[in-house]
Amino acid sequence: MSSRPVLGLTMGDPAGIGPEICLRALNENSVTAQCVPVLFGDAGVLARVGKLTMSALPAQVISSAEWAKLDSIAEPLIVDCATLDAGSVEPGNISAVCGKAGYLYIEKSIQAALTKRIDAVVTAPIHKEALRLAGVSHPGHTEIFTALTGARRSCMMLYSDKLTVSMVTTHIGYHEVPGRLSVERVLNVIELTAEAMGWMLRRPPRIGVCGLNPHAGEHGLFGQGEEERFVEPAVIEAQRRGIDATGPLVPDAAFTSGVRSRFDAIVCLYHDQGHIPFKMLAFDTGVNTTLGLPIVRTSVDHGTAFDIAWQGKADSTSLFSAMRVAVELATGRNLKR
Amino acid sequence: MSSRPVLGLTMGDPAGIGPEICLRALNENSVTAQCVPVLFGDAGVLARVGKLTMSALPAQVISSAEWAKLDSIAEPLIVDCATLDAGSVEPGNISAVCGKAGYLYIEKSIQAALTKRIDAVVTAPIHKEALRLAGVSHPGHTEIFTALTGARRSCMMLYSDKLTVSMVTTHIGYHEVPGRLSVERVLNVIELTAEAMGWMLRRPPRIGVCGLNPHAGEHGLFGQGEEERFVEPAVIEAQRRGIDATGPLVPDAAFTSGVRSRFDAIVCLYHDQGHIPFKMLAFDTGVNTTLGLPIVRTSVDHGTAFDIAWQGKADSTSLFSAMRVAVELATGRNLKR
Repeated sequence: MSSRPVLGLTMGDPAGIGPEICLRALNENSVTAQCVPVLFGDAGVLARVGKLTMSALPAQVISSAEWAKLDSIAEPLIVDCATLDAGSVEPGNISAVCGKAGYLYIEKSIQAALTKRIDAVVTAPIHKEALRLAGVSHPGHTEIFTALTGARRSCMMLYSDKLTVSMVTTHIGYHEVPGRLSVERVLNVIELTAEAMGWMLRRPPRIGVCGLNPHAGEHGLFGQGEEERFVEPAVIEAQRRGIDATGPLVPDAAFTSGVRSRFDAIVCLYHDQGHIPFKMLAFDTGVNTTLGLPIVRTSVDHGTAFDIAWQGKADSTSLFSAMRVAVELATGRNLKR
Repeated sequence: MSSRPVLGLTMGDPAGIGPEICLRALNENSVTAQCVPVLFGDAGVLARVGKLTMSALPAQVISSAEWAKLDSIAEPLIVDCATLDAGSVEPGNISAVCGKAGYLYIEKSIQAALTKRIDAVVTAPIHKEALRLAGVSHPGHTEIFTALTGARRSCMMLYSDKLTVSMVTTHIGYHEVPGRLSVERVLNVIELTAEAMGWMLRRPPRIGVCGLNPHAGEHGLFGQGEEERFVEPAVIEAQRRGIDATGPLVPDAAFTSGVRSRFDAIVCLYHDQGHIPFKMLAFDTGVNTTLGLPIVRTSVDHGTAFDIAWQGKADSTSLFSAMRVAVELATGRNLKR
């Protein structure tokens, strides 16, 4: 890895706000001071969006064939994946063509990361419905990355300067959560979170782990003993493996400023246990990362915003944060080796 | 009701911080400007705590017999319930005697409220373990008030200036929640919340109602359709009854500043859905109220704090807030009649 890591950037759904926020990243000195961005997208779409939202394209465009032969990467690049007829793309429109294009950029970036040509992948938003229309069976980024990298275990972590949470379960029904808990799953998420936060912070991180029931069960008074059966043994095993883990935390106390400041990240057992406090503290500015992959991957924490696409109104704060976190993770990870 | 409502104040567990925060309330001009407090407790304990934390007792002491015969209440009073030997009480000690005493103050205050001698009851903290040692079968205030007033339906509401939440379920296991949901229960809580917030605000309140699953189920993608089966019909029926109700809200969006500011109160389906955001925004300053009773009842949102009892260190902010909310509720409720 050079002094500045090379970040693969995926353009996301061409009809969304992905193209304009990616162009802005390539044009932003504070970004290019930290990393060399390589944008996987369609040059024709970027040219159209660029004309509408800024003057000239802020980086050299090369073809996929040229990319395949390129030896060294020192300046920002746009890799033209040429997946579609750029003239026919309508901003804000859900289409199979755009869903497929968004998927191909991801595929290309994962390939580049697995072969170590880039140090991390940062993704702009794709559209679930467009993806489905394109015949892609995975519902979202996390599943695509897990499948295409052959990851054995993975989890979602939401990072922000105020609070970082990682999830033992995510997009399943409320009632399914207790049946999905196990010592192994909780331990996996503690380990993956400790590893990633260690890369970010360059020191052993402090990890809190929430209970499931009100008051963390109040010693078996509420619930089915999930705290004693799953959380406690996982925390004890994590400690045995050298991780500074604490739990089960009482969920409604864990996110008060006094308690959350004692931890670098908090492991949550279900979607809303982590997402409710995270969105309160870091709405639209957080970074979504997938842990446990053989590559570093971060993402914006917002959607395609079709209603304002190609208008130059989109906020790129979350993308810049996602790139900054990718730089930290990739650098810290390489230091460890 | 006189211009200033009469608030019954229960002293809480004698060995906790209840006595000192109640004495402070009786001595505080900003409190007595709004209401006439009548403290149900033990004069012997109050004399001991008063000596340790302030100079003289800030109100006249009368016996239970004198209280029974009293015609009008114009000044703060201490009603000596004489439940125990004050000299034997040890601060910070869990005991059956103190558990029983705390219960008797509540019983006396409820009697006074049901016979309209006082306009509301505000409770200082009791200790669950002491209550149990005393042979009281109810686990806490909410259950005691519900039982002793014969309330048909009731719910817990947590009030603060930043966020108000009320609960369809509270102290049960995570896994029991879906089975406890019904249109009637959700509708009950919407109605009770709208009624109480109408008393507080003197205008029709705006009530939000959360879904259960991630993204409120995303149109049946996650969960067992709890949003469509329970929340939607309850919201529609509430609207038909003239309540400004909205839902199901996406839980992880509902508590962001942009969304929560659109509602005066948010109905939550389970303990931590409401308690996590509430404690983040109003830790130790919130007011706990029981809705649906034939009387107005509010409470501090903290415990007995045995570790600092009788030392004059306890913060009375939450008690003063609970008294202010009781004044608002009692006044608004009487206006409606």
